[in-house]
Amino acid sequence: MSPRILFSASEAKWHEYEGHLRHSLSAAGITAELSPDLGPPEEVDYVVYAPDSDVQDFTPFTRLKAVLSLWAGVEDVVGNTTLRVPLTRMVDSGLTEGMVEYATGHVLRHHLNIDHALAHQSGNWVRHVPPLARHRHVTVLGLGVLGAACARALAGLGFIVAGWSRTPRDVEGVTCLSGPEGLEQALARAEILVLLLPLTPGTDSLLNAAHLDQLPPGAVVINPGRGPLIDDEALLAALDRGDLGHATLDVFRTEPLPPEHPFWAHPKVTVTPHIASETRAETASEVIVENIRRCEAGLPLLHLVDRDLGY
Amino acid sequence: MSPRILFSASEAKWHEYEGHLRHSLSAAGITAELSPDLGPPEEVDYVVYAPDSDVQDFTPFTRLKAVLSLWAGVEDVVGNTTLRVPLTRMVDSGLTEGMVEYATGHVLRHHLNIDHALAHQSGNWVRHVPPLARHRHVTVLGLGVLGAACARALAGLGFIVAGWSRTPRDVEGVTCLSGPEGLEQALARAEILVLLLPLTPGTDSLLNAAHLDQLPPGAVVINPGRGPLIDDEALLAALDRGDLGHATLDVFRTEPLPPEHPFWAHPKVTVTPHIASETRAETASEVIVENIRRCEAGLPLLHLVDRDLGY
Ligand SMILES: NC(=O)c1ccc[n+]([C@@H]2O[C@H](COP(=O)([O-])OP(=O)(O)OC[C@H]3O[C@@H](n4cnc5c(N)ncnc54)[C@H](OP(=O)(O)O)[C@@H]3O)[C@@H](O)[C@H]2O)c1
Ligand SMILES: NC(=O)c1ccc[n+]([C@@H]2O[C@H](COP(=O)([O-])OP(=O)(O)OC[C@H]3O[C@@H](n4cnc5c(N)ncnc54)[C@H](OP(=O)(O)O)[C@@H]3O)[C@@H](O)[C@H]2O)c1
Repeated sequence: MSPRILFSASEAKWHEYEGHLRHSLSAAGITAELSPDLGPPEEVDYVVYAPDSDVQDFTPFTRLKAVLSLWAGVEDVVGNTTLRVPLTRMVDSGLTEGMVEYATGHVLRHHLNIDHALAHQSGNWVRHVPPLARHRHVTVLGLGVLGAACARALAGLGFIVAGWSRTPRDVEGVTCLSGPEGLEQALARAEILVLLLPLTPGTDSLLNAAHLDQLPPGAVVINPGRGPLIDDEALLAALDRGDLGHATLDVFRTEPLPPEHPFWAHPKVTVTPHIASETRAETASEVIVENIRRCEAGLPLLHLVDRDLGY
Repeated sequence: MSPRILFSASEAKWHEYEGHLRHSLSAAGITAELSPDLGPPEEVDYVVYAPDSDVQDFTPFTRLKAVLSLWAGVEDVVGNTTLRVPLTRMVDSGLTEGMVEYATGHVLRHHLNIDHALAHQSGNWVRHVPPLARHRHVTVLGLGVLGAACARALAGLGFIVAGWSRTPRDVEGVTCLSGPEGLEQALARAEILVLLLPLTPGTDSLLNAAHLDQLPPGAVVINPGRGPLIDDEALLAALDRGDLGHATLDVFRTEPLPPEHPFWAHPKVTVTPHIASETRAETASEVIVENIRRCEAGLPLLHLVDRDLGY
C-alpha cells in the first residue's frame, strides 16, 4: 500500500512545497498520496507539519506513523499530549546556511561597528580601526546543528569562539563548555553573544537579569534562537543602564512584535522580523521524504525530537 | 658593522613601532642602530618608510641598501626617481586579517540587506528573507595578498566568488579570471564587487562609466583598495540613475574626504574613513626585520615592488 501523507501547513507553504515533495518522493521511488486535504484522519500515515497549522488534536489520526515538522523549533508541538507517535524536527542544509550567514553577518557588523559608520556620514573624518577578530571573544549558546555551524564559521573568520551546550560537545576550533559552571565561563567572556538554543523548560528566560550581569561591560546580544530565551525587561534594563552595548533580535515572545513594543524604538535594539533563516522547500523536502522512506523501511528516523527534553 | 636604520614616519608611528622593532631585531640577533633621527643620510643603511614622511629625496642616502615601506600601497613612492635601491611593500598578517574582516563584513551587510533592517525599526513587521550566499555572485578585483585572502574567505562562507588579476592566478574555490576579457566576465556577474587592486597607471580609473555599465543592475561596489580606482563622477551618475545599488568606500582621491564631497551625504554611499585595515606594529615589525636580516645575509628580499609595474 502507498503511504498517505497529509500536508498540514498554510496554503502558501503547500504551493511552495508541493512540487519539491512530489519530486523527492518520486526520486526516492515512493508512490504516495500527498495532499493538504486527505479526507478521514484515520487514513493518514504521515503528517508533514507546521506547528501553527489547523491540526492541533492528533487523537483522530489513529494509524499515524510519524509527524514530520517543517520547523526546526518544535516548542509549540512537543508538549501536545495527543501526539503519541515519533516527531521529527527540521534539519535542512539551506536553513543552516542561512543561519550561518545571519550570525556571521551580524557578529561582523557589531565587531566592525558598522552601525557607527552608517550613523556618521556627515562629513567628519574620524578614524577608529576595529580590533582584529583574533582579539574578539564570541560565545554561542547552543551547539546543535545551527549553533555548531555558526561557531565553526566564526572560528574560521578568526574570532575566539566559545560554545555552550547541555551535554559536552566537541567542535573544532571552539572552546566547548557545558553545564551551569560552563555557562558562567561562557557568559563572562562573551563580548558578542549569539543565542541558538531551542526553547524548552530548561532554556526559558535563560538570559535573565542574573545571567545578563555576568556578561562583560558593553557586550552585544544576538538572538536568532527563540524570543522567550530572554527576559525582555531585564534586557531593556541592562541596555538602559549601559551594561549591554546592543541587542539584535530576530525572535520575540509575541510575533509579529507589536508596533508599541519598546524594542522597536530602542536605540540600542535592532529588530529583524524572524528572517534569520528559513527552511528551503527544495532541501527540506528531501529531508522529509528521507524520513518517510526510513519509516517505511523500518529504519530509525533522523532528527527525532526527545519529548522529555523538549528538543 | 651593525646596520643603521632610519625610521621615517610620523612621531605617533615611532611610538607605536619602536618597541616592536627593537624586540624583533633582538629576536633576530641583529645589533642595529634604530632611530627616527640618525644624523647624516649618507650613513643610513635602511629606511623604514611611510610614503607620507618627510623624506622624499633619497639622493643624499648614498649607502642605502633598501627602503622598507610600512604601507601595502606604494603608489606614492614607486615613481620616486631618486629612489634607486630595492623597495619592499608591507605584507602583514594583521593587515590581511583586518581586510578579510572588513570585506566579509561589508559583503554580508549588503548580502543580508542589514542597512534596510536598521532603517526599518518603526514597528512594521515586513519579512524579506535574503537569498542564500550560494546564490549570490561576488567578484573581487585583484587577487594579490589581500584580494586572494578575501576571495577565499568569501568562498568559505558559501558565496559564488570570481576574482580577477593581471596574470592568471589559481585560488581554491574561486573562479579566477584575468586580462581584458576576464574583466568583462568578472564585472558582468558581480552582484557585489570588491576592489582590491593597487593604484598603478594600469588600474587608475579602472571603474569608469563603461566598466560600471557592465555590472548587473543593482550591483554594490565596495572599495577598500584605492580611491582613484574609481571615476567618482561616473559612480555618482550610476547610483543616481539607479543602475548601481550602493557604494561602500573606504579610500578616496583626496583623504580625508572633504566634508563637502557628495559621497558623504549621498543616501547610496557609505563612507568609512580609510579604516578597512591597518598594518599592526607587532607583526609588521617582524616582516621589516626579516627583510633586513635577508639583506644583510645576501638573500633575496620579500615583497619586492616591481618598479615598472608599479606594485
Ligand atoms: N530565527 C530563525 O529563523 C530560526 C530558524 C531555525 C531555528 N531557529 C532556532 O534555533 C534553535 C536551535 O536549532 P538547532 O537545529 O541547532 O537545534 P539542536 O540541533 O536541537 O541543538 C540545540 C542545542 O542547544 C543545546 N541545549 C538544549 N537545551 C539546553 C540546556 N538546557 N542547556 C544548555 N544547552 C542546551 C543542546 O545541547 P546538547 O548538544 O547537549 O543536546 C544543543 O547543543 C531552534 O530550536 C530554533 O528555536 C531559529
Ligand atoms: N583600505 C585599506 O585600509 C588598505 C589597506 C591595505 C592595502 N590597501 C590596498 O590594497 C591593495 C592591494 O594590496 P595587496 O597586498 O593585495 O597587493 P598585491 O599583493 O600586490 O596584489 C595586487 C593584485 O592586483 C592585481 N593587479 C595589479 N595590476 C593589475 C591590472 N592592471 N589589471 C588586473 N589586475 C591587476 C595583481 O595581479 P597579479 O596577481 O597578476 O600580479 C594582484 O593580483 C594595495 O595596493 C592598497 O592600495 C588598502
